Amino acid sequence: MTTISIIGSGNMATAIGTRAAKHGHTIEVMSRDTAKAHALADKIGNGATAGTFGATPLGDIVIVAVPYASAVPVVAQYGDVLAGKVIIDISNTFNADATALVTPDGISGAQEIAMAAPAGAHVVKAFNTVFGHVLAQGRPLDVLIAGDDADAKASVSAFIESLGLRPLDTGDLAMAHWLEGVGPLLMGLARHGAGFNIDLGVNVSG
Amino acid sequence: MTTISIIGSGNMATAIGTRAAKHGHTIEVMSRDTAKAHALADKIGNGATAGTFGATPLGDIVIVAVPYASAVPVVAQYGDVLAGKVIIDISNTFNADATALVTPDGISGAQEIAMAAPAGAHVVKAFNTVFGHVLAQGRPLDVLIAGDDADAKASVSAFIESLGLRPLDTGDLAMAHWLEGVGPLLMGLARHGAGFNIDLGVNVSG
Repeated sequence: MTTISIIGSGNMATAIGTRAAKHGHTIEVMSRDTAKAHALADKIGNGATAGTFGATPLGDIVIVAVPYASAVPVVAQYGDVLAGKVIIDISNTFNADATALVTPDGISGAQEIAMAAPAGAHVVKAFNTVFGHVLAQGRPLDVLIAGDDADAKASVSAFIESLGLRPLDTGDLAMAHWLEGVGPLLMGLARHGAGFNIDLGVNVSG
Repeated sequence: MTTISIIGSGNMATAIGTRAAKHGHTIEVMSRDTAKAHALADKIGNGATAGTFGATPLGDIVIVAVPYASAVPVVAQYGDVLAGKVIIDISNTFNADATALVTPDGISGAQEIAMAAPAGAHVVKAFNTVFGHVLAQGRPLDVLIAGDDADAKASVSAFIESLGLRPLDTGDLAMAHWLEGVGPLLMGLARHGAGFNIDLGVNVSG
């Protein structure tokens, strides 16, 4: 299929990378910690490689899978090598007790990343409404997305579909604020009876 | 079953009242427009009556089913007659183009209503994540709720279950901000390919 570059080596990087590799994509793992990048590439297998943190990503799609606090600095550090790339922001921006967002009203982590990205890069919000361990279970899920660039959203939607998931467009990148607000909701549901093996889905009636 | 009082005579008042009456509840419709209250009570049938706007509601559960802009003034006008009641706030607080909320960060329509309600009344957010016309279709749906009082939430959950719906607790009333944020998301989904015959559900995996 295609080469997907993932910046990060944590829970979500592992879940997305593993699922993408199983569906035929070639994964490039980029981490500030080179040992972790190699370890995750080995774990993912299927031809996955460890790239050089900060170098030009091999993939046209670059998934920023680092915690929100690091996401903007990492994108800024990559800088111009991200020009022309489709950047997927998967971050959750909720606070320590998962009741509110650390980003102010009217902005989102995704929009902050877009401001830090070079001209010609397009940010699409995706995957933040899915728990990594649920994604790792392999079953079909809905993946809500938001973004300003139609071509970038089409590219991300095709990638999501290739993983056996259903992309659902919520609108432009400003909608990422409300997608990030799903984070506290999911945590609240998990903690108030639903448990953590949950995912949010959209039912379309006849 | 029980008597449910509904303040309002619009789309959501009709959908909830009709569904509740079909499931054995007795509905009291209260509207500033007496003619509309009588018309809706007649439409709902099953013993539904038109109450007097501003008088003590017959039901222990009072559903405030007026537009957000009217909800706080209406609750303030009812005042002390709502003491001891469980107030269900169903309002959506999004702006004219459904992209953002008109309430500031860190607050919600539900919390504003709670502040306007008398001592001893308990506000539970519910139903705002469900389109009225979808609710009217009669099929099972998930109804996300939030509230500070456990007994009030239990009462509302029992009511929701009695309608063939699944209540899902998201946490305390502050979570209503993020439930209200689902409004723009649902509108965004509807307008970007999913259409308006949609509902948000929570899947619990094994």
